[in-house]
Amino acid sequence: MTKTFGDLLNRVREKKPLVHHITNYVTATDCANVTLGIGASPVMADAIGEVDDITAISNALVLNMGTLNERTIPSMLAAGKAANTKNIPVVFDPVGAGASKLRNDTATSIISEVKLAVLRGNISEIKFAAGLGANTKGVGASESDISAACDSGSIAKTLAKKLNCIVVISSAVDIISDGEKIAYVENGNEMMANITGTGCMCSSLLGSFCGAAREDLFAAAAAAMLSMSISGELAFEKAGHLGNGSFRVALLDAIANLDAQTLERRAKYREV
Amino acid sequence: MTKTFGDLLNRVREKKPLVHHITNYVTATDCANVTLGIGASPVMADAIGEVDDITAISNALVLNMGTLNERTIPSMLAAGKAANTKNIPVVFDPVGAGASKLRNDTATSIISEVKLAVLRGNISEIKFAAGLGANTKGVGASESDISAACDSGSIAKTLAKKLNCIVVISSAVDIISDGEKIAYVENGNEMMANITGTGCMCSSLLGSFCGAAREDLFAAAAAAMLSMSISGELAFEKAGHLGNGSFRVALLDAIANLDAQTLERRAKYREV
Amino acid sequence: MTKTFGDLLNRVREKKPLVHHITNYVTATDCANVTLGIGASPVMADAIGEVDDITAISNALVLNMGTLNERTIPSMLAAGKAANTKNIPVVFDPVGAGASKLRNDTATSIISEVKLAVLRGNISEIKFAAGLGANTKGVGASESDISAACDSGSIAKTLAKKLNCIVVISSAVDIISDGEKIAYVENGNEMMANITGTGCMCSSLLGSFCGAAREDLFAAAAAAMLSMSISGELAFEKAGHLGNGSFRVALLDAIANLDAQTLERRAKYREV
Repeated sequence: MTKTFGDLLNRVREKKPLVHHITNYVTATDCANVTLGIGASPVMADAIGEVDDITAISNALVLNMGTLNERTIPSMLAAGKAANTKNIPVVFDPVGAGASKLRNDTATSIISEVKLAVLRGNISEIKFAAGLGANTKGVGASESDISAACDSGSIAKTLAKKLNCIVVISSAVDIISDGEKIAYVENGNEMMANITGTGCMCSSLLGSFCGAAREDLFAAAAAAMLSMSISGELAFEKAGHLGNGSFRVALLDAIANLDAQTLERRAKYREV
Repeated sequence: MTKTFGDLLNRVREKKPLVHHITNYVTATDCANVTLGIGASPVMADAIGEVDDITAISNALVLNMGTLNERTIPSMLAAGKAANTKNIPVVFDPVGAGASKLRNDTATSIISEVKLAVLRGNISEIKFAAGLGANTKGVGASESDISAACDSGSIAKTLAKKLNCIVVISSAVDIISDGEKIAYVENGNEMMANITGTGCMCSSLLGSFCGAAREDLFAAAAAAMLSMSISGELAFEKAGHLGNGSFRVALLDAIANLDAQTLERRAKYREV
Repeated sequence: MTKTFGDLLNRVREKKPLVHHITNYVTATDCANVTLGIGASPVMADAIGEVDDITAISNALVLNMGTLNERTIPSMLAAGKAANTKNIPVVFDPVGAGASKLRNDTATSIISEVKLAVLRGNISEIKFAAGLGANTKGVGASESDISAACDSGSIAKTLAKKLNCIVVISSAVDIISDGEKIAYVENGNEMMANITGTGCMCSSLLGSFCGAAREDLFAAAAAAMLSMSISGELAFEKAGHLGNGSFRVALLDAIANLDAQTLERRAKYREV
């Protein structure tokens, strides 16, 4: 594909994909606002009685298990299966996988029962998904997992091949693999870890880009991660010195203002 | 009634009505903050075991089905009926009506079993409520419904007469009808569609004004819609160029700072 | 203990305690962001199937019954008991106690079945917990309870002795008692009542400080309340004139930027 990342961003804004989220109540507002900011349209709906209907009219589905519960787990599985039937791309964010048996069982079920387009997590969550064990500390990556991350590229590639999907590891350098190629996004700013939800927002952007360009999920995933990471840099330049309240506002602003030229000019992207 | 819109705003701030919300987890924070900003007091409570108690001590009830589920639907119906018994005004926001059978059934149940003070939605949601079908796209109005909106006034009026309540259609020009009169609010700014929850926030303001002035629901509804639309203009003037993060903050500020004089001076209101 | 409040703040930032929250969906985002801002790490998880696991890896547990429901009440009790078993401090925020039978019963159950480290509420909520009746208006303190608050110190002290925990009453002057001493925090700003969640955020800070310094819960509670109140003053100085949207952002910023020196220099603290 010769589409550039900027083309993909423009495509999101032209197509305005409807992105169905089954997500947590901690970051739902910010996820909705970044989805709007990037040019897509969010719908949050998690009742088992309607997820089939909502998924069916959507262009992408984001499953985020941040505040999963006994009521919403079946909804996530049902929505995932409905999306598969309709060929709608599914982004899965296994928040906190490794931290509780319920999260482990749920992540395992979703990965085994739903054909994913993109699996995105921090290194602890992805290691869990890869069956490598993990030292998850709540919903953040553990430091021992981060320091061992030199082989993140190969973990992502192996898991992507196994699951036949795109695997994204969010970290200081984001990693994206389709099982063949590995891409590295070296943009971003450590301030992004000082607000809640930057991971969830990445997943919302992944849903937005995949919903607009499902014929090339690898490029869509890369464009989404670049959009988030570059927006994080722009927000830091503007408001990083002010605190995490201002940074959060500036991050939403940066995503909404991001244009194709800035995305391409600032991208620190390499593919092997 | 000879009360002006500014008088009604002052009344909200004097009376500080308690507004019971059964609402969604995407925009609940912003709804609580606009309720505080306009001078009322929010309480969010959705457990079936307490909605009667909470409604009974409240001055208005807002039912918003944004993230409805099997647990909260009975709570909405129970709270609505409790409000009716106590003569507490009920504002209903049928978010996403038309988008799923569950939403359709829930909206139909609430409309048929609860006496509403105000029904507020976008044109797609109101067309659904009016039995006119709708082309809802998730939780936003469909473009075909918007372009056909030339007859929105008559739809609102007919539905208001049928339901014996105030019907409000949020759009570029907001429409308010009590079944006899039709009012048009020509304030507002298109940036309001770029953040999540402006519709929900309108419903919170409707609850606040109706809780303070239930003897004139038409004027209360008009004052609420004017407050939101004018605040949207003020926020756009201040922060519209910065992005949706800053706009959202400025919108909350504008609502909190709105005074009676500004409300009346900027109102683009006509009634037929 | 000769640790200063500034030492305790530094301890939070060094230890980065994991704070498990079972909390409401209205203020969860802000609670997560203040927890990050003060230097701790939040995890929100409320499913009965995982609360034992999540509590077990945490350094503190915050139970906030803001939007309690039939599903999460058993989770709060189970998490509280798990925390007790592991000697993890439990902060309980009985939001709206006095406003419904469900809230009253839940508060009573938690207080009787869980050994608390800190009980924090407004005067109406604490009076309910003390068996003194209350005139709760929704989730805010009633004015009659506030005006009768001259004896708040003795209420806090008596209740703290009875429950063998720290009792904190949030008000214009915050009160903290361990059943022997009574501390008064005279910092803060009335603008804090104009945004939703300042009480919930206090409870998150209490969890953060208690998770970092559980060997001296009284000092930890005082440091948490000082951190919030002083941040409220700093936010007011910066953004109080702009509105509650900007104030909320500035409050998050102030908490994230608070340093040991500022905390000690601005503290208006007295202990009797």
